[in-house]
Amino acid sequence: MNKLHIYDSLSSKIKPFEPLEKGKVGMYVCGPTVYNDVHLGNVRTFLSFDLIFRYFKYLGYKVKYVRNITDVGHLVNDLDEGEDKISAKAKAESIEPMEVAHKYTLGFRNVMREFNALPPSIEPIATGHIIEQIEIIKKLLETKLAYESNGSVYFDITEYSKENSYGELSGREIEDLINGSRDLDGQKDKKSPLDFALWKKASKSHIMRWSSPWSDGFPGWHLECSAMSEKYLGNEFDIHGGGIDLKFPHHECEIAQNVGNSGKKGAKYWVHTNMLTLNGKRMSKSSGNVLLPMEIIKGDSKHLTKSYDSNTTRFFIHQAQYRSILDFSDEALKASEKGYKKLSSALELLKSRKNIGPENGSFDVKKWNHSCESAMNNDFNSPQLIAYLFEASKVIQQDIKDPSILGKNGAELLSEKMNIWIHEVLGLTDFKDQGSGIYKKALEGAMNIVFDARKNARERKDWETSDSIRDKLLRAGIQINDGTNESDFTVTQ
Amino acid sequence: MNKLHIYDSLSSKIKPFEPLEKGKVGMYVCGPTVYNDVHLGNVRTFLSFDLIFRYFKYLGYKVKYVRNITDVGHLVNDLDEGEDKISAKAKAESIEPMEVAHKYTLGFRNVMREFNALPPSIEPIATGHIIEQIEIIKKLLETKLAYESNGSVYFDITEYSKENSYGELSGREIEDLINGSRDLDGQKDKKSPLDFALWKKASKSHIMRWSSPWSDGFPGWHLECSAMSEKYLGNEFDIHGGGIDLKFPHHECEIAQNVGNSGKKGAKYWVHTNMLTLNGKRMSKSSGNVLLPMEIIKGDSKHLTKSYDSNTTRFFIHQAQYRSILDFSDEALKASEKGYKKLSSALELLKSRKNIGPENGSFDVKKWNHSCESAMNNDFNSPQLIAYLFEASKVIQQDIKDPSILGKNGAELLSEKMNIWIHEVLGLTDFKDQGSGIYKKALEGAMNIVFDARKNARERKDWETSDSIRDKLLRAGIQINDGTNESDFTVTQ
Repeated sequence: MNKLHIYDSLSSKIKPFEPLEKGKVGMYVCGPTVYNDVHLGNVRTFLSFDLIFRYFKYLGYKVKYVRNITDVGHLVNDLDEGEDKISAKAKAESIEPMEVAHKYTLGFRNVMREFNALPPSIEPIATGHIIEQIEIIKKLLETKLAYESNGSVYFDITEYSKENSYGELSGREIEDLINGSRDLDGQKDKKSPLDFALWKKASKSHIMRWSSPWSDGFPGWHLECSAMSEKYLGNEFDIHGGGIDLKFPHHECEIAQNVGNSGKKGAKYWVHTNMLTLNGKRMSKSSGNVLLPMEIIKGDSKHLTKSYDSNTTRFFIHQAQYRSILDFSDEALKASEKGYKKLSSALELLKSRKNIGPENGSFDVKKWNHSCESAMNNDFNSPQLIAYLFEASKVIQQDIKDPSILGKNGAELLSEKMNIWIHEVLGLTDFKDQGSGIYKKALEGAMNIVFDARKNARERKDWETSDSIRDKLLRAGIQINDGTNESDFTVTQ
Repeated sequence: MNKLHIYDSLSSKIKPFEPLEKGKVGMYVCGPTVYNDVHLGNVRTFLSFDLIFRYFKYLGYKVKYVRNITDVGHLVNDLDEGEDKISAKAKAESIEPMEVAHKYTLGFRNVMREFNALPPSIEPIATGHIIEQIEIIKKLLETKLAYESNGSVYFDITEYSKENSYGELSGREIEDLINGSRDLDGQKDKKSPLDFALWKKASKSHIMRWSSPWSDGFPGWHLECSAMSEKYLGNEFDIHGGGIDLKFPHHECEIAQNVGNSGKKGAKYWVHTNMLTLNGKRMSKSSGNVLLPMEIIKGDSKHLTKSYDSNTTRFFIHQAQYRSILDFSDEALKASEKGYKKLSSALELLKSRKNIGPENGSFDVKKWNHSCESAMNNDFNSPQLIAYLFEASKVIQQDIKDPSILGKNGAELLSEKMNIWIHEVLGLTDFKDQGSGIYKKALEGAMNIVFDARKNARERKDWETSDSIRDKLLRAGIQINDGTNESDFTVTQ
């Protein structure tokens, strides 16, 4: 595709991307609820939006990317009763709610850094926007889309449904929702079981509380995203993203709040990432079918035979399109590791390519690059992009034997483009960049001695030693770049 | 000293430390205003409190360490007029205030991580606590310690001074303050030039604004710290810290607000870190006499002849007690680099010490360790602690020739204690920890070949090659640990 197209979950259509303001993109993504370690499904979601963020930047857009931190209002069962997730964890760990939030926010940021996700432009926090949330509630009360009940305030779905269709994002019918709703504690204040909390009066033992016109209490979970997206991106913005599990009720409620507040639904494109399974089954803590991101890096899980680095994991995630279900397994990771190494080796090979062959080769790099763009323009089809990268790897291998395939200019252009796709768009880091100072320096010193030993052995015609050195280096992941410079080497794994 | 003593700036006395609650410490430190890169003076302050935090943990306290992020209300000239620092920067960079705050918050966290500062327990943000600030203003208005004037609210110093002494922390007299005050714009709403803003009505063009009972506006700079320290640590807590430049007006105003709000001054111990100069002169951007933390790491400054790593910089900072003025210079850093290397080498030497000598040596490690504690108990006297560490280094050197100095048990105990002081309390990282996976692995592989080459050369009685290998390794910072294991080595620099 010549132009970026995005699947919009609200209209269920692939639509050409037209930004609201030329050259700019406003994107809001629902961030984590910071009451426990971020799970692998979250990582997939945030890396998918990182890819989308990176591709918008690649296309030259100025992107304002807002990803929030939820530290209040998200109740244990994702509905309007039960304990606040943060408070519950605070009790369990005998620390205060804000210490829980801080601890897991730091943990989340560490995971994002480990997987090389770019920080968003703004990372607003729910408890930092209580006033803004109260302002929206006041407005909804004025327009009769909300009602107060015993110090709490609820959104009135019956009233809203007179002119709007609640359920349109998740494809649910009001009648089915009512029939399917459970009879729960704390629902007695509501006119209808579908109504959801905008403000909850805090019980005496509830720690997280703020003063409001209705009671000392706390905001409902869905409200923060309406408040923060409006504050930082306005009533209408380009992209609203999140995991597929947030479609209902979270995003459905956000749309209702947005319409009540400003008459606009919020985003022009609603983007949802699909599920991640483990060995074909849904991940769940209780069944033990679960894997944390850091367990992959450490190789510390019964589901893995070894550790895999963050590049491999990220590569694996982008080998599926964000809208497909992705199944995680040791086998699949092993294959990704092999694949990414192949890609890296090709890139290294291209870097050390001698400046030989004709000016222009037979392989059309520009056309190839256009195919890569076309793949990403097709709703961020990263597996298709990766297929093109593998195609280029093959070309690089062939070009060693026959440098007329790439030619001087083609090799240079391909190197530039491959680097952009692999590092800047797919967000995979260069192996070389991972080394830190002292070991690198020490290695260079040790390698000088190794090169001398190898040279001496060859001069003495001691082939046994010379071969043994080569084998040992290979096992240590050190590749000698013969031909160019006698003491040039690459660490490849 | 057998017991921790802390200099309290409010009483100007060294006082024995008695926590308000047994076994627990509550500590509030004023964090950065996130409108530009954190400067070296800030780094000194935060590393000093990191040392204090670490020492409290060493002593077995459960520490709740709150360090805030200021993202609103801090006006350009630190008084009640001029533009908000964040807003001004946002205009200059053509981005929104919250993007400025986010950008420099990330930058600040990177610097703290680079210098191995532990994250505080909570890192609350000023804009996240507008409601709490409004609540305090309401209370101060009730008790007549504040007054409204054209939509803004000011603290009434004249009223406060009837029963309290404003200026007691910084040792200032009310009369001197009034005589010294300037006639400035925006002061006309105040009854007295000493009164300070609790709430400022926002002009139409002011972007950062919240609704309040008095106007759409924003809180005064000093208020956030009263609100956040009360929220997370209560009306009375153990330590309040900050740079010495915050004594007046910031902490003076905080005390006044605290007293007005709760009748308590806040902290039991007020702790202030002293200034940092560069080449004997005050740092200032306009004169070019300035150095950023990352410029040291990169060696990218006209004030430096080379780069220094974060360990060296941190070691240098702790070589002065936090209450002394510290002068930064290339010479001084060079000396610290040498000193820290000496310490690290001694530690490495101790690690590879053979298990020889008598059970107990002549050097009394327990007594020595007690001296280290005594130094830190004396108002966190880190230079004294470091002097004891150098003393231990000398002992380690002597013990090589005469293993009856440390003996087996003494060597083991000293190794344990030195590690705790250097790594856990002073927060210096082990050089070894800095290496990352692939280079370390590659180095091990390369070193196997080097050891073989060395062995072969020796067997051939080729002393020239054998010596050359040793010299090259030394230059690469690789030390061979002969005697214990034939292929054991240490990377030392």
